[in-house]
Amino acid sequence: MFPKQSHRLGAVSAILIAMLMASCAVTPPQALSLGEQGSFAVGGTVVTQAGDFDPIKPTAAGQSFHGDHAYVFYQVPVSPRPLPLVFWHGYGQFSKTWESTPDGREGFQNIFLRRHFPVYLIDQPRRGNAARSTVPISITPTPDEQQWFNTFRVGTWPNFFPGVQFSRDPEALNQYFRQMVPNTGPFDADLFAGTIAALFAKTGPAILVTHSQAGGPGWLTALKSSNVRAIVAYEPGSGFIFPNGEVPAPMPSAAGALEATGVPLDDFLKLTRIPIVIYYGDNIPDAPVTNPGQDGWRVRLAMARMWAASVNRHGGDASVVHLPEIGVRGNTHFPFSDLNNMAVADEMSRFLQRKGLD
Amino acid sequence: MFPKQSHRLGAVSAILIAMLMASCAVTPPQALSLGEQGSFAVGGTVVTQAGDFDPIKPTAAGQSFHGDHAYVFYQVPVSPRPLPLVFWHGYGQFSKTWESTPDGREGFQNIFLRRHFPVYLIDQPRRGNAARSTVPISITPTPDEQQWFNTFRVGTWPNFFPGVQFSRDPEALNQYFRQMVPNTGPFDADLFAGTIAALFAKTGPAILVTHSQAGGPGWLTALKSSNVRAIVAYEPGSGFIFPNGEVPAPMPSAAGALEATGVPLDDFLKLTRIPIVIYYGDNIPDAPVTNPGQDGWRVRLAMARMWAASVNRHGGDASVVHLPEIGVRGNTHFPFSDLNNMAVADEMSRFLQRKGLD
Repeated sequence: MFPKQSHRLGAVSAILIAMLMASCAVTPPQALSLGEQGSFAVGGTVVTQAGDFDPIKPTAAGQSFHGDHAYVFYQVPVSPRPLPLVFWHGYGQFSKTWESTPDGREGFQNIFLRRHFPVYLIDQPRRGNAARSTVPISITPTPDEQQWFNTFRVGTWPNFFPGVQFSRDPEALNQYFRQMVPNTGPFDADLFAGTIAALFAKTGPAILVTHSQAGGPGWLTALKSSNVRAIVAYEPGSGFIFPNGEVPAPMPSAAGALEATGVPLDDFLKLTRIPIVIYYGDNIPDAPVTNPGQDGWRVRLAMARMWAASVNRHGGDASVVHLPEIGVRGNTHFPFSDLNNMAVADEMSRFLQRKGLD
Repeated sequence: MFPKQSHRLGAVSAILIAMLMASCAVTPPQALSLGEQGSFAVGGTVVTQAGDFDPIKPTAAGQSFHGDHAYVFYQVPVSPRPLPLVFWHGYGQFSKTWESTPDGREGFQNIFLRRHFPVYLIDQPRRGNAARSTVPISITPTPDEQQWFNTFRVGTWPNFFPGVQFSRDPEALNQYFRQMVPNTGPFDADLFAGTIAALFAKTGPAILVTHSQAGGPGWLTALKSSNVRAIVAYEPGSGFIFPNGEVPAPMPSAAGALEATGVPLDDFLKLTRIPIVIYYGDNIPDAPVTNPGQDGWRVRLAMARMWAASVNRHGGDASVVHLPEIGVRGNTHFPFSDLNNMAVADEMSRFLQRKGLD
């Protein structure tokens, strides 16, 4: 009888356990559990028109205009790692870069939330959700997507590169083209860097992840904020800074000459105090070709290597990873949203782990 | 001994239960648990330039331009309710309307995710993250914020209305002004309604929540998609549609005359087949005043009442809730982000519950 009793107690426990597991199962293993999410503007300027504001017949007189801030959407997973990731899009893009991929899979936003990093997505000033610019502009829609298809190294229009990590579903290309937005004011690397430095004042120590055109203002941000504890740069396209007197000659290509900029050595040395990794994808030629979409990347990769060598010569820790050389093949200009973006994320995770940043 | 044994089994169960509860506790009660989140473009047009694309010296010839789509960010909580909420911002605004409030509290995005609704946030075509427009535009930053302060009924600049549900922290006003973005193309109610109807084809049956200027294209969306199962409209500002022959005369105010539009009766009757609620906040005058910021709302509230009466006369289920009349006081033009937005959300939840929509 007592054994029976104890079995009955065991059965009750089993039911209780099953009930508790069921309540746990409300959160399936693949659920994203967030401790917090929200959005805010950071940085920016204020323009004020002279005069007195007339509430009855209002004109610009006496009124203000807030603009040139960045917009930030952030999510903090439960059990977060200590250092957030701050993601900065490239030319013509916005925070979408890091969200769902063109073919509808998860991008770096979700992938790194699942790896327990707080994730901050930026729309830089005068772009997307931060479009309120203090500088006037005219926007003329100009058909340009075949050129982007080539420049982003999906292929040579209308052909995809063999083995390229981009979906052949036409809807993926539709989504890809629609993830662009115009500038609503001039690009201003120094202004933007100051704005993102203000974001790092808010986040505290964090890791900056840049794409393409954000590479240049990304380096400048690290000069302005010691809270930038590492930089991961995907395919920086321009804006390499060298110590004054060590600036390399412009590098000609079919896409034009790539020029570097000089900064005081003291500023440059700040880049030697943090780990930096630069990734480039596939289908970048070794020797000059006539297609500007590909040839521009030949000189950018070459200059990135010269730049990393300069950082390291001055005592830094910068590396350039050309993904096909480590067996990660077929990547476009957007490795983080390519079909193999999980392998690309794994590379980034290994870098963060090696440098003790996770 | 056997009793002791069974106690021991009980103790083991207790430990197991405690362990399971601890593993549940990784997700604290206030965590947001999402089954899914992502973003996509929906709708839109494609412009193609005649000619052959030249990859070596590219011009617009032979190239395409995708624009005029909406951008959508969606989140689906675990254990979702059946009908998603689709949130559509108003004039000069974008999805931020529903995110963190100007003073940094949770907006309707988080509040209704916590209430287990799937949440879709729109940036309408030619706005914010959907800024890629097929129509050219010139944008001139014009100081206008004191006028918005008045029109959004925060107060009469520089004074806040007594008891207004808006933070007195200057940073809240800074965030508020920075949550505006310019149009990057003309406002086109019919085009926008078609785009959001395309979104409802994707979501399936769902509830549309509009703010201000989205009110008008919101009604048009329900004409185009039977997947719009209810509409919650916060402070619709224009675009009321009546059956042809029943259109009221323009209603003059210090902010100009408010005009309604006629549509075929068959179209109008579609609005009688779904529950509709309209909310207006506080500080809307009963009689004409000289301040256009306040007076415009006097006629909008009056027309909304005429409109709801017309819908109901034709057999529909529309109601207008003037929040101070039910004891919810101090609300601005943005009740969903005001200091009392939890009470405002409770009102909306009660509506959804009464209509069997939750």
